[in-house]
Amino acid sequence: MLAPVRGALAVSTDMLLEGRHFFADVDPESLGHKALAVNLSDLAAMGASPKAFTLALALPAVDEAWLTAFSRGLFGLADEYRCELVGGDTTRGPLNLCITIMGEVDPSLALRRDGARAGHDLWVSGNLGGAAWAVAHRQSRGDWARPAALASTRFEAALLALHRPQPRIALGRALLGVASAAIDLSDGLAGDLHHVLQQSSASAGQPLAARVDLTALPMHPVLRGLSPEVQYRFALAGGDDYELLFTASSELRATLQAIADRLGLPLARIGAIEEAASSLEKTPRLRWIDACGQAVTLALQAHDHFLTPSSPG
Amino acid sequence: MLAPVRGALAVSTDMLLEGRHFFADVDPESLGHKALAVNLSDLAAMGASPKAFTLALALPAVDEAWLTAFSRGLFGLADEYRCELVGGDTTRGPLNLCITIMGEVDPSLALRRDGARAGHDLWVSGNLGGAAWAVAHRQSRGDWARPAALASTRFEAALLALHRPQPRIALGRALLGVASAAIDLSDGLAGDLHHVLQQSSASAGQPLAARVDLTALPMHPVLRGLSPEVQYRFALAGGDDYELLFTASSELRATLQAIADRLGLPLARIGAIEEAASSLEKTPRLRWIDACGQAVTLALQAHDHFLTPSSPG
Repeated sequence: MLAPVRGALAVSTDMLLEGRHFFADVDPESLGHKALAVNLSDLAAMGASPKAFTLALALPAVDEAWLTAFSRGLFGLADEYRCELVGGDTTRGPLNLCITIMGEVDPSLALRRDGARAGHDLWVSGNLGGAAWAVAHRQSRGDWARPAALASTRFEAALLALHRPQPRIALGRALLGVASAAIDLSDGLAGDLHHVLQQSSASAGQPLAARVDLTALPMHPVLRGLSPEVQYRFALAGGDDYELLFTASSELRATLQAIADRLGLPLARIGAIEEAASSLEKTPRLRWIDACGQAVTLALQAHDHFLTPSSPG
Repeated sequence: MLAPVRGALAVSTDMLLEGRHFFADVDPESLGHKALAVNLSDLAAMGASPKAFTLALALPAVDEAWLTAFSRGLFGLADEYRCELVGGDTTRGPLNLCITIMGEVDPSLALRRDGARAGHDLWVSGNLGGAAWAVAHRQSRGDWARPAALASTRFEAALLALHRPQPRIALGRALLGVASAAIDLSDGLAGDLHHVLQQSSASAGQPLAARVDLTALPMHPVLRGLSPEVQYRFALAGGDDYELLFTASSELRATLQAIADRLGLPLARIGAIEEAASSLEKTPRLRWIDACGQAVTLALQAHDHFLTPSSPG
């Protein structure tokens, strides 16, 4: 049982499957960390404080060493956020993890996806594309996959981004009363920004679009030296970033810089929310702007675990 | 988000896999009902009132008709208990359902597994073994599987027990302040009673045992005419009953009869908690007593989804 909570309860659930969300030979300690981290990231996007979680686990067989390492990763992160395990279920079957997380938040301040309005700045935390690069490198897709030419620190940083994402809980809390909308980047910036625009357009009763300044995107160091097009693909459609994308009034730029300084976490202003060019547009438009201020067309495909077949390993 | 809850939050999570917890060709409406029912049953065993749930679902493919029927079963039961869906996740993979349910309960009254004491009566609600019979009939195990010889109403009742279990929420609430320990029967009475004895022994600092009067067991009508040994196997080790097993002071028999009358739900007094014969016993002992008051030995194997391979359908 969970002691009484103050405010409203923010709840999120995620199911992670072998072969879809992680490789079959994943390090179990990393898996334990990441399974909880992606759920904590959902709470971060609401500005909620973690309280408790449940874990349901299907395993092909009982493997003590695997479970010990998995638990070390899971509880290491849980303890960091004082997030208590309050329920569990284990069964035998193809490896599958389902975590449900609960946090508390003042319902009048909770961050939502539908509060973006024309004129608001668009921000993102940390940097983008490192985890997606690590997945692609593992799959050895594309001629850019030349780790031998990379500084090993950048390579390691990309692996950390993939395996040990840091949920932006402190940032989410700092954005309460500051950000007008927020979402965590799980499926890639393009797709997740689309969700914010759709929900905010419906809430505003006005079709909204977004301008994204490509030169302002905070690229993961591992992407340096790759062609711009490849960098954009990783940073905008790669998925697995678990940074926060959020909007805020342009009057709050100094406030946001102060938050970035206090948390030691870079916040990049990467564009703005706009009125859609035509009120007849049914699909929110993303405008990608290059260094010359020109709109460019990018061929991006949003990451979608349900619709896009993937075949890692 | 879930509005503020009164009291403590009771939380439970269950993962259901095709081929392990249900047949591949299960009626999706029944599956939707049962997936939520088994979680509601966990809340019933705590005496909690359902508030909200999350659903994570892995599906091999998008099948609109399947999802519509599944949702009808799920939300039919959710609406009955005013239990709100507050989060979800869908992904592609082998059929797997994970539901996490949240309810509220006064933490000072919540039913627990560790409060049984020597001298307390042992009770069970409803009747036992119908769902297990239906599974075995489906698997056509044993020469007792002769549905042609059965009244069709009993046959239908057994299928309903398997596919549409009724969570004992009202009973759980009525037992607050009355029952000293409670558990819902998911794995079979023998195994679940064992859990109560283990936890209560630890809490009491005294090894406890239980006496179960076999003639007092409320058998599902479908079991009539089967040999006693087969009946006991279904009723004690079959699993999937989702009735409440609970203990209470013997002074509360009239109170419990009044609860049974008010709810229109039979409650059977099937035995008692005892001091263990020897304080050296490490494993709580279940004593099965026949109509002559003699202890009998039953060869039962507790149902365990994790340890016992099953190969339905």
